[in-house]
Amino acid sequence: MFSILRINTANGDSIRESHSSTEYLLGGRTLSSRLVSREVPADCEPLGKKNSLYFCNGALSGTTVSSSDRISIGGKSPLTGGIKESNAGGVVGTRMSQLGLRAISLEGAPARDAEWQIFVIGKEGVERISGEFLAGKGVYEKSELLSEKFGKKAGCITIGPAGESLLYSAGIACSDPHGVCSRYAGRGGLGAVMASKRVIALVLKDDGEVKPEIQDQDKFKAGSRKIVKMLKENPVSSKFTKYGTAAMVDICQALKVLPTRNFTHGVMEGAEKINAQTMYDTIKERGGEGLTQHACMHPCAIQCSNVYPDKDGKLLCSPVEYETMALMGSNLCLKNLDTIATMNRIANDAGVDTLDCGAAIGVAMEAGLAEFGDNDAAIQMMEEIRNLTPLGRILASGCKIAAQVLGVLHAPHVLGQGVPAYEPRGSKGMAVTYLSSPMGADHTFGFTLRDEEVPTSKEGKVDLSKKFQVIGSRMDAMGMCNFVRYSVRDDMGPLLDLIEARYGAVLSEEEFDNMVIETLKLEHQFNSDAGIPASAHRFTETFYDERQPETGEVVDITDEETLQAMKW
Amino acid sequence: MFSILRINTANGDSIRESHSSTEYLLGGRTLSSRLVSREVPADCEPLGKKNSLYFCNGALSGTTVSSSDRISIGGKSPLTGGIKESNAGGVVGTRMSQLGLRAISLEGAPARDAEWQIFVIGKEGVERISGEFLAGKGVYEKSELLSEKFGKKAGCITIGPAGESLLYSAGIACSDPHGVCSRYAGRGGLGAVMASKRVIALVLKDDGEVKPEIQDQDKFKAGSRKIVKMLKENPVSSKFTKYGTAAMVDICQALKVLPTRNFTHGVMEGAEKINAQTMYDTIKERGGEGLTQHACMHPCAIQCSNVYPDKDGKLLCSPVEYETMALMGSNLCLKNLDTIATMNRIANDAGVDTLDCGAAIGVAMEAGLAEFGDNDAAIQMMEEIRNLTPLGRILASGCKIAAQVLGVLHAPHVLGQGVPAYEPRGSKGMAVTYLSSPMGADHTFGFTLRDEEVPTSKEGKVDLSKKFQVIGSRMDAMGMCNFVRYSVRDDMGPLLDLIEARYGAVLSEEEFDNMVIETLKLEHQFNSDAGIPASAHRFTETFYDERQPETGEVVDITDEETLQAMKW
Repeated sequence: MFSILRINTANGDSIRESHSSTEYLLGGRTLSSRLVSREVPADCEPLGKKNSLYFCNGALSGTTVSSSDRISIGGKSPLTGGIKESNAGGVVGTRMSQLGLRAISLEGAPARDAEWQIFVIGKEGVERISGEFLAGKGVYEKSELLSEKFGKKAGCITIGPAGESLLYSAGIACSDPHGVCSRYAGRGGLGAVMASKRVIALVLKDDGEVKPEIQDQDKFKAGSRKIVKMLKENPVSSKFTKYGTAAMVDICQALKVLPTRNFTHGVMEGAEKINAQTMYDTIKERGGEGLTQHACMHPCAIQCSNVYPDKDGKLLCSPVEYETMALMGSNLCLKNLDTIATMNRIANDAGVDTLDCGAAIGVAMEAGLAEFGDNDAAIQMMEEIRNLTPLGRILASGCKIAAQVLGVLHAPHVLGQGVPAYEPRGSKGMAVTYLSSPMGADHTFGFTLRDEEVPTSKEGKVDLSKKFQVIGSRMDAMGMCNFVRYSVRDDMGPLLDLIEARYGAVLSEEEFDNMVIETLKLEHQFNSDAGIPASAHRFTETFYDERQPETGEVVDITDEETLQAMKW
Repeated sequence: MFSILRINTANGDSIRESHSSTEYLLGGRTLSSRLVSREVPADCEPLGKKNSLYFCNGALSGTTVSSSDRISIGGKSPLTGGIKESNAGGVVGTRMSQLGLRAISLEGAPARDAEWQIFVIGKEGVERISGEFLAGKGVYEKSELLSEKFGKKAGCITIGPAGESLLYSAGIACSDPHGVCSRYAGRGGLGAVMASKRVIALVLKDDGEVKPEIQDQDKFKAGSRKIVKMLKENPVSSKFTKYGTAAMVDICQALKVLPTRNFTHGVMEGAEKINAQTMYDTIKERGGEGLTQHACMHPCAIQCSNVYPDKDGKLLCSPVEYETMALMGSNLCLKNLDTIATMNRIANDAGVDTLDCGAAIGVAMEAGLAEFGDNDAAIQMMEEIRNLTPLGRILASGCKIAAQVLGVLHAPHVLGQGVPAYEPRGSKGMAVTYLSSPMGADHTFGFTLRDEEVPTSKEGKVDLSKKFQVIGSRMDAMGMCNFVRYSVRDDMGPLLDLIEARYGAVLSEEEFDNMVIETLKLEHQFNSDAGIPASAHRFTETFYDERQPETGEVVDITDEETLQAMKW
């Protein structure tokens, strides 16, 4: 049996329910999207009281299996107007497991001007306390205050000032193993949804005593070891161990899909100044608190995270990831890792998604508010976000709204969500994926780039995208880190064996994939019921009309092809 | 035969086409909405090159008939995402008639960074000249520069800095009889559409020699006199002659539908400080250039316009109308006509709609950016718009986007267009009208308020709204001033007789109304094809959940009722 803790945020009441269905067994996006689909009226206002917010850990949460403790957060997104699942690493999933929880929901909403509240969840139950002492503070300070009050080992979930202000790029920050809320479910504005319920933090106390009951200990241990071996031997994930995701800079530059100058180019001269080797060398050289390898959750055999130190070796930002390096780096023609790390740190403190803010700053630069390549101006724009100035609010509203307000026509988004770090004109597979995602432009969804023989050709890309939509979604579907997918893409057996050893439940790969596909169908149905039109599944017209200089390409994916890629 | 001048804004080419169909005979919204519906792909980007902008005068344009020379401007709206017709008074319609034109279209678009252009239309043809000398200047200065260059009698159409910046509340300003571009087609952001084609002004030279060929002079003269008599004797329009539309302040206060404090209340204490009598007395007392009665076009027997003078008797703003007095007055708890007139003047200079900006400032005040009732802060916010600061851009993007960026849930709009000056919880007829308009919340469309026995009851209001949707749309349908409707609401004969006398064309009231209804159907179909969902035809959830204190009412119109009011 699996438990969901339902919290009524209007009056503080809570109730635990038990379920035994496969959706609860798998948890993750399998569960969060089903709960949203079933319980949230598709046409409600994302920041109104009819929306709910769900936190779901995954099938192998709380066990010794590497990279198995992502937490999926689901709800209706203010950014896309559709269903959203955004997931994060950290320790929250484990704490939920220790308290015997598969899911937590935040339902309803108190009056718009109600006091900020914190729900503290422990083995004795749920306590509602005032959250006013956190109001207006940055996420780093919030983390310290929460650690002081509940200990560094508590699993905390909080939002930044941007979330409190209901901004659409506001994410939800979850505790890392050091008690810092630095692991972000960043996308889709779920931080604003949490704030709309006047919930400024959720705390999972470290007093849980529930241990996973493993049905077949030997098989489980062997399976767990096998996963570690696979991750360490896999050429992609093992490369991430040394270089982190920054390894993508050179790959994307070579493929001419490195977002540059507000997505008008796919190549940045000087990209080597922000590539993986430069980052690696910088971190090693500076030493101090810097780490080229770092785990966002325990256990993890990949450890793609890092700690980027400042010139004195003190932690500046952890982690700095490729998507951020592109959206806040090349996209703004910035060639300075310190600038990117500083912007990233401010984003984490403000509680905003680095991709959506990077995309919005690119739009602002195109509008002439600053020069591309101006490091100080870019940092200043992040300060505007942190300080919630009018400009900061525009920049933290996602690049679609930023473009509307700033009068810019070339805005890199689909469904309002900023395009990740692969220029879609140069990779038709990624273009199809962005267009057909139920979550808005998203790269963890159907990541084709590594498997496109001719990235600029659209031939076969609908099928390729669909293949990887399933491969990518499998990980979300059970709360695994997305990077595990490289090891199990051709054979989910090792993970399904672990599920069997853990629960005694036998799931074939076909049954599992059917669950994954069913999730996608429910998500698309939700969006359709929410009134999202076909024309929202497009880039701005400029991507179809104006050639990307390095490849000479435009987006040539038709509505029909997008529709095909959404049909299951 | 009727002519449309089609201008290709990408290369400056133009062509005249001739048509003889009834839609061209009637002109106005009958024609503009048909052209949009037929020629603009419903799912295109409003500021992209696939949108077109249409300027249509009406059936009795250029004649001696009172109040017959409105110009309908149509296109796809960036504000609502749907079809738009916004009309204005002034002399442009007449100048078009004198040049033998029923319609002008602006099609295509040059490169995004192309030079600003002006199309100058005269009896010798169309000339394209650089418009760079107007760039960035306010509409008052633009008017002077255009008058200097083309004479005060030219019919000029221009946009303000807000339009140039592609802001969604940007209107299109048309010359009044004094050569000032003060007659606004304000709603729906059509100014931004014009700017997206890099057209900063259109000039209709005063060299046209075409005179209306009247088929039956005697009948026409008699009919024209009859209209004047009817307008002068009608209790509503005759009241507008003395007081202008400001007469509505007391009526709405009494009915508890005067938008107050960001549409949270329907009554403002001290409303008499901004009512019609106060305005009348102030204008009379100050004298100078002030006028309580003023015609926006010639001829007009109503003359509801005014010239509001400053303390020294110099023109401060002309006109100041009720909708502005409510949205920029009571809605912001401002009780000072000088403040309202000053804000109105700045809006006219910036080139923005006073309703949408007033609604956005109300949202900003609710967000805490200024206190309600703070005159200086309100004027300062208009200055921010005029100066295109980040805050100004937010405020000039309409109250929906302003609310998204500023984190406010109670935002008075339908389809993104700000709610006019009748609080919808207190008038269920107006609520139905706002909800079911194809143009977003609109008051000229189906104005029920004067005919609701119990405004707070929704009984019969769908039918009442539909009745007045037709009555109101009849005027737009042939380019008549909306205030003529009071005189012909029960019998369109006098206007149809004029059409017969003018053209020899016999149109029955039923045939005419069928054209009107067909227009509505086409407009709704366009919006549906544009992907506007049913949920966009709603107020924000707060209007359904939170009672308006004075009436104790919420909006209780269901989606089904809205749909009924949209079905013909």
